[in-house]
Amino acid sequence: MENSLSNKGPAFHWRLRVYFEDTDAGGIVFYANYLKFFERARTEWLRTAGIEQQRLLDETGTGFVVRHTALDYFAPARLDDQLDIDSQVVAVRGASVDFEQIARRDTTILARGRIKVACVDIAALRPRALPPAVLAAFRPTDPIH
Amino acid sequence: MENSLSNKGPAFHWRLRVYFEDTDAGGIVFYANYLKFFERARTEWLRTAGIEQQRLLDETGTGFVVRHTALDYFAPARLDDQLDIDSQVVAVRGASVDFEQIARRDTTILARGRIKVACVDIAALRPRALPPAVLAAFRPTDPIH
Amino acid sequence: MENSLSNKGPAFHWRLRVYFEDTDAGGIVFYANYLKFFERARTEWLRTAGIEQQRLLDETGTGFVVRHTALDYFAPARLDDQLDIDSQVVAVRGASVDFEQIARRDTTILARGRIKVACVDIAALRPRALPPAVLAAFRPTDPIH
Amino acid sequence: MENSLSNKGPAFHWRLRVYFEDTDAGGIVFYANYLKFFERARTEWLRTAGIEQQRLLDETGTGFVVRHTALDYFAPARLDDQLDIDSQVVAVRGASVDFEQIARRDTTILARGRIKVACVDIAALRPRALPPAVLAAFRPTDPIH
Repeated sequence: MENSLSNKGPAFHWRLRVYFEDTDAGGIVFYANYLKFFERARTEWLRTAGIEQQRLLDETGTGFVVRHTALDYFAPARLDDQLDIDSQVVAVRGASVDFEQIARRDTTILARGRIKVACVDIAALRPRALPPAVLAAFRPTDPIH
Repeated sequence: MENSLSNKGPAFHWRLRVYFEDTDAGGIVFYANYLKFFERARTEWLRTAGIEQQRLLDETGTGFVVRHTALDYFAPARLDDQLDIDSQVVAVRGASVDFEQIARRDTTILARGRIKVACVDIAALRPRALPPAVLAAFRPTDPIH
Repeated sequence: MENSLSNKGPAFHWRLRVYFEDTDAGGIVFYANYLKFFERARTEWLRTAGIEQQRLLDETGTGFVVRHTALDYFAPARLDDQLDIDSQVVAVRGASVDFEQIARRDTTILARGRIKVACVDIAALRPRALPPAVLAAFRPTDPIH
Repeated sequence: MENSLSNKGPAFHWRLRVYFEDTDAGGIVFYANYLKFFERARTEWLRTAGIEQQRLLDETGTGFVVRHTALDYFAPARLDDQLDIDSQVVAVRGASVDFEQIARRDTTILARGRIKVACVDIAALRPRALPPAVLAAFRPTDPIH
């Protein structure tokens, strides 16, 4: 796994701050919390595309569930650090999207992961086609290259 | 606020362990997590009375919401500590219960709190009378005195 | 406890968003998480005053611990909500500060709390005088009135 | 990735309960929390081998950091569920251990993961040989096969 995002699809940048709640007794960010950071970034990405997950759920019964996460942890983050989360879509299928996401402090990569998110009928937890607005946001803009 | 539970009503004891997820960069248990510890103890207390909250919710639409929490933090807990949670009912009303709860390591009181939990129709979030099984579990055993 | 902040001292406003990690199976923000939201706001307030807690800890061994929290929960927040956190200093002593903090969605107060934060020698967890920069940030600007 | 643990090395079983704090607005356990469940199980495994991480840290400056996590999520857990965590060592190197871990409700596999934990000098975050007690606990009992 390389230390930079490949340039395969739409990308999104988001910035956050490390608070006490994110750290553990090792004095660093608890590793499970990078999943939260990545989730926040994907949520903000959807928001910039006009998609609010609560409204989507209320109006259509459609939700997203995470099916797979694979993360490598390279270096620690500490309290007060400002982290940049770089997100990129690397695959879009009918009912799921694969993301590559990086957490970095300036140019230092702290964690890197691949996340598969599936679209489901939230009551039955059965696969459901991605809403058009989500497809439009995450589909590679130039599929020829 | 005193350092021991008054003897006003039914009581319950429960034990837990401190894990990495519970600590923060100060090397101690993050203070907000005592609310989780107290919640776990109340949940186990309900369970010993035969009440499962998910089933109660599914079958009757009844849930519990926390209305008030007041905690004092006296001493820190650290990773690997074994904590005892002492819980006591100090007031029961038609649609709410007041608890006093202590987190201690052996005889050292680490945190002490008062929690008000209200019973609600979870869809409308409106007050609803406590289910009889909950009343039976939490009502003072000797109402004469 | 009233539904608006009194006007006793320095105040600070900060805004945040509710993510999946903040919610629970009741479909609303887990009540313990308001303590995290209030902590983030106090941290950002310190930052605007030029104080980074990790640096303070590394350079002087001084840290902050929460001694008391009292919160009332009035109304629920949900996924995607934008919350405003209003914070105000209501008392400053030699080694501690009392805050009043509100979480609101627009003009609806969701939760309101009082938090006492003490300054300590983090190794010994013994009281230590508030650093001058902290005092300057939190001391009432016009002590005559 | 198969749905049962291979039989490559020492194994450990641990049981936990799902509380409100573990769930999210989807009504199910928040996926990041399986990392916490797996961590608790590894911690208890170490404890049965006589190893307390806080003591190890205090006495030798040795700690564990997670380097890699890969999880698949198959089915949701809900509030009040009792989960069994099956853990197995699949590789031991000089300064790291690879675990396979499963979260199941009875015989239903909910999540399955592979976790790499490295042993480090916690101050420098540099690799350090696994302590003999850890090696003894996690080394395959029958290295001939």
